[in-house]
Amino acid sequence: MLLYLLDLAGIAVFAISGVLAAGRAGLDWLGVVVIASVTAVGGGTLRDLLLDRHPVFWIREVRYVYVILAATAAAIAWVHFFTLPEHALALADALGLALFAMTGAQVAEERRLPTLVVILIGTMTGAAGGLLRDVLTDRVPLLLSSGIYGSAAIAGIAAYLLLQAAGTPRRWAFHAGLLL
Amino acid sequence: MLLYLLDLAGIAVFAISGVLAAGRAGLDWLGVVVIASVTAVGGGTLRDLLLDRHPVFWIREVRYVYVILAATAAAIAWVHFFTLPEHALALADALGLALFAMTGAQVAEERRLPTLVVILIGTMTGAAGGLLRDVLTDRVPLLLSSGIYGSAAIAGIAAYLLLQAAGTPRRWAFHAGLLL
Amino acid sequence: MLLYLLDLAGIAVFAISGVLAAGRAGLDWLGVVVIASVTAVGGGTLRDLLLDRHPVFWIREVRYVYVILAATAAAIAWVHFFTLPEHALALADALGLALFAMTGAQVAEERRLPTLVVILIGTMTGAAGGLLRDVLTDRVPLLLSSGIYGSAAIAGIAAYLLLQAAGTPRRWAFHAGLLL
Repeated sequence: MLLYLLDLAGIAVFAISGVLAAGRAGLDWLGVVVIASVTAVGGGTLRDLLLDRHPVFWIREVRYVYVILAATAAAIAWVHFFTLPEHALALADALGLALFAMTGAQVAEERRLPTLVVILIGTMTGAAGGLLRDVLTDRVPLLLSSGIYGSAAIAGIAAYLLLQAAGTPRRWAFHAGLLL
Repeated sequence: MLLYLLDLAGIAVFAISGVLAAGRAGLDWLGVVVIASVTAVGGGTLRDLLLDRHPVFWIREVRYVYVILAATAAAIAWVHFFTLPEHALALADALGLALFAMTGAQVAEERRLPTLVVILIGTMTGAAGGLLRDVLTDRVPLLLSSGIYGSAAIAGIAAYLLLQAAGTPRRWAFHAGLLL
Repeated sequence: MLLYLLDLAGIAVFAISGVLAAGRAGLDWLGVVVIASVTAVGGGTLRDLLLDRHPVFWIREVRYVYVILAATAAAIAWVHFFTLPEHALALADALGLALFAMTGAQVAEERRLPTLVVILIGTMTGAAGGLLRDVLTDRVPLLLSSGIYGSAAIAGIAAYLLLQAAGTPRRWAFHAGLLL
């Protein structure tokens, strides 16, 4: 249940970051939808393939796809009518990274994998969507140009392993907010 | 059977598009073969991994690999002896996209997945090979710079879902041709 | 056992090549660790996903992760204190490619796959890590700009298929050394 909510929040936030990046790159509406979708499902899909969880999360549960489309539409409308806060893309990226890093860590942890592997899978789950987005829109990946994002993911996963399941979501939102 | 023929046609066309893109990027013969192969198998491999179909299509059936090599050799020879029509790469890309989008949609549809998921998997299957090709040869992805290709895939899959299996191949070729 | 040692050597060498590439691109320490890890696990992970070998090698055996971290730390320290030989990156890349190409070929060969498929999987296993590294650090992939590396992988796999298991490791080291 927690995992489900984190996945939903993560894909919404990453879809928004995809819209912002695609808009900046001057893509048309379809390019925007493609980038938003790839960014949103990238991390969780990599997690599910690496851990052999089938069907992959957005194939098992169509609701995720609706969330992507809704978040994308909302972000396109928002960009159309309002000016964006300066760090909107970085904020969405960091929040999505933190949320997905946690889902990756949680799934890996349920399998009783060693701590280092949990951290690696969490980091990859959090980072993959944003990396795909940046490679496809031909930007230097945010994750790599600014170490703070990745550090946040690793710190967050470590915190999660300590806190285990109870009471984490609020701390995470807090944590992700702190980041910036 | 239909799926098999579509896969064969799709990888041949994508291998050719890979040769054209690699030639344009000034790669040597091995780079050309690598790009042609990756472009040709990329979409179908992603489809098979996402849907947990093992062995992956070109591992199960070596004939696909022969088709890639034959199409690559033919395209290299062709480029060597003739000048290319101006839109050759865009044409090959759109045709490959349409063919693979349909194989992806067909496989997803056989699993009785929800329509939106079928559309997403079809689009990804069609788009992945070309995106890999463009990222590796460091071009702005065709798919993203020109929305018409992706729209065609989505429209085509929607048409396919209406038409179901019967009589589709001819319509598809027609459709892909129309595109340009 | 042989496979295990080859995997260990391959990831150490690729982690080093990742450090060199990330240093050149001016990334901070975390970016360096991310690129080193992705380069190191990329090829073997692709191999395991394509062949449906689960759990993926570095998830099954945490020792691989320790090797990555140790090789990365050693390479960072080395770069800090010494000047690098001119072709260090190309050397690490070619050696990693040869080592991983052989693990890919070996696994595929154990499954009694057709020779062409063995060669393709070996090439992909060897090439994937370096391609990911170069795409993420936004360089023209070494593999593609200089055909000698890929040719070496293919030649090496062909040699391996002839030699089968016995006595190969030394020949491979020899082969990889020859390359340059």
